[in-house]
Amino acid sequence: MRQRAHGGNLTWAAALAGCPPSAILDFSASISPLGPPNSAIAAITSQLGNIQHYPDPDYSELRQALGHFHQLPPEWILPGNGSAELLTLSGKEFSQLAATTLITPAFGDYYRSLAAYDAKVLECPIDLKGGGGEGGTGRGGDREDKEKFLLHSSTPRFLHSPPDPLLHSSPPSRSGLLLNNPHNPTGKLFSVEEILPYLEQFALVVVDEAFMDFLPPDEEQSLIPLIRKYPNLVVLRSLTKFYSLPGLRLGYAIAHPERLSKWQLWRDPWPVNTLAAAAAVAALGDQEFQSATWEWLPPARNQLFQGLAKLPGLQPLHSAANFLLVESQQSVCQLQEQLLKEYQIYIRDCLSFKELGDRYFRVAVRSKSDNQRLLTALKALVKQF
Amino acid sequence: MRQRAHGGNLTWAAALAGCPPSAILDFSASISPLGPPNSAIAAITSQLGNIQHYPDPDYSELRQALGHFHQLPPEWILPGNGSAELLTLSGKEFSQLAATTLITPAFGDYYRSLAAYDAKVLECPIDLKGGGGEGGTGRGGDREDKEKFLLHSSTPRFLHSPPDPLLHSSPPSRSGLLLNNPHNPTGKLFSVEEILPYLEQFALVVVDEAFMDFLPPDEEQSLIPLIRKYPNLVVLRSLTKFYSLPGLRLGYAIAHPERLSKWQLWRDPWPVNTLAAAAAVAALGDQEFQSATWEWLPPARNQLFQGLAKLPGLQPLHSAANFLLVESQQSVCQLQEQLLKEYQIYIRDCLSFKELGDRYFRVAVRSKSDNQRLLTALKALVKQF
Repeated sequence: MRQRAHGGNLTWAAALAGCPPSAILDFSASISPLGPPNSAIAAITSQLGNIQHYPDPDYSELRQALGHFHQLPPEWILPGNGSAELLTLSGKEFSQLAATTLITPAFGDYYRSLAAYDAKVLECPIDLKGGGGEGGTGRGGDREDKEKFLLHSSTPRFLHSPPDPLLHSSPPSRSGLLLNNPHNPTGKLFSVEEILPYLEQFALVVVDEAFMDFLPPDEEQSLIPLIRKYPNLVVLRSLTKFYSLPGLRLGYAIAHPERLSKWQLWRDPWPVNTLAAAAAVAALGDQEFQSATWEWLPPARNQLFQGLAKLPGLQPLHSAANFLLVESQQSVCQLQEQLLKEYQIYIRDCLSFKELGDRYFRVAVRSKSDNQRLLTALKALVKQF
Repeated sequence: MRQRAHGGNLTWAAALAGCPPSAILDFSASISPLGPPNSAIAAITSQLGNIQHYPDPDYSELRQALGHFHQLPPEWILPGNGSAELLTLSGKEFSQLAATTLITPAFGDYYRSLAAYDAKVLECPIDLKGGGGEGGTGRGGDREDKEKFLLHSSTPRFLHSPPDPLLHSSPPSRSGLLLNNPHNPTGKLFSVEEILPYLEQFALVVVDEAFMDFLPPDEEQSLIPLIRKYPNLVVLRSLTKFYSLPGLRLGYAIAHPERLSKWQLWRDPWPVNTLAAAAAVAALGDQEFQSATWEWLPPARNQLFQGLAKLPGLQPLHSAANFLLVESQQSVCQLQEQLLKEYQIYIRDCLSFKELGDRYFRVAVRSKSDNQRLLTALKALVKQF
């Protein structure tokens, strides 16, 4: 099962497809097809002469760059070995509370990080059939569309009033909340206003914003601007998805400096390697790459959404992120296998999301021509069902 | 204090020396001056095209290479983000025992990793004045020398018979032992035979062998060959020191597969970045680099030892590793500062080892010409005291 627990296990996929990993057209990992930025690669090459030194334990330059990017002093930022590492440290923090509410379906590593420290988990499902995020119909959308989304489409059960009883099984002052925004795997976007009441209610709120940077700055619903107001808030960010750098392991937490100082003692002082730190600084400054990404995504996502919606037996959900969750009337396992064996195309099954089972798959949005290759292959295969 | 807690904080040193970090002659970090191997650099460059993929979560190729190197099946090996990360996981394991005996003086990060999980620490000092390891007198030494070392020179208090009462303050079946071998900062080498009784006595023995690879294979006192016999044994290794790759963050634990499977769930599945994993595989296969290191170290260490011993007020300890601990009749702080300001030479003060305070410093063994630069500078400075 390990092989199927996460998108991007190309080793497993390539073995099934009978080709080298580099020949796979990978829709399983929700990574931008535009990266890595050339600026990041150049920064790595320029730092090869420095790997015989320990990284600066303060990561001054990296924190400075991240601070500049988010308009925060560096001490509000803690770099980590991927945001997944910082998620693990969140798990240790959550374990000190009576219970943690987890919005489901949830990324499998959320369960691992909470189980690693025996945190008590309360699962709280979102309404899958309630519609999707704001994406899929092009960049932005007018205000009317957005209002509709906030009030109806994306409102998960945990946001209903009165709140779900699950939330109150522990005194709120002693319980935590873990969610991601945009939500993975559905692609739903929660507005800042929707999350605000939970910051008042929960002792600790960790928001994983690994896909938030795919929204242009004026459409983001990030909680980072509120970080100084809520010492119980932690925002996790990643450079993995947007900059296409999952091989480097590079994420960061934004939270009150006192909390981050504590976290810093929970691991050794060198979470990020020298080459990854250099790539991050370069990528954060690469505005050209950032603009290109924001220009690429909405039309490419729309193309993929419309193409999938036309196929019999498949129903994509609207998404604010760079991936689409697709409901299938047939079991997805055979489809995944055929796509690999016949087309060397790798889609993400959703078996690791226990609420979804074998009737959903997730695909990353790629270039228009790659998206078309997937649509053509799917069209041929779904006919056979 | 952070800046002085570990060797290799070149940022701090360069600021004091008023020069760029690259201009510092760094004796503070116990890193081989021969590396990084060209093979490792080439491997990194060849993998730049793969950073847009997640690392293989099984690290099959890396574990295979490490398994081949140590003649163990891959499932006995867990790669980590530096051995320092695996030390942290050891801390979590130790916290589940009643107490952990720590051989002191100990690397500051040992205390951090034990404190991170509230493990109870029992400090057990080794006999600093009892002499040193087997190094310093050239490679190897005859059997008589070695016997002497085992029986007298390196025997720390915790190895005395009857054992130190500290060891028995908790039932042995419920307590742990953490030591490094060769010991840092003294350079003492414990023989396998000396450690064996503790494997019978303690519920968990973690041996940090970060410097063991500096001994040629026929002189190593590694516990790795015993790993299958003792499920309560964990050996930590690092590629940082020997291959000069501290910027990459690359270490591994060797232990029973069941223990490693448990540890694997205590962190996210991608501890090592793609470039570091590739460098490791290349370095492990680089026998030319390995032989060159074993040829360089004994005479260079001897040269440095003899030179230091001749200087008034300084007394180096014999060492089996690639560094020497030096006792000074004067406070070391001023000496460290003068070396930086006047010679751009950086030595490691020992303030972070509370048993040593300001009367010891540690220097890495470097090339003969670098060693001579240090000796010449020290000669000029100690005259001024």
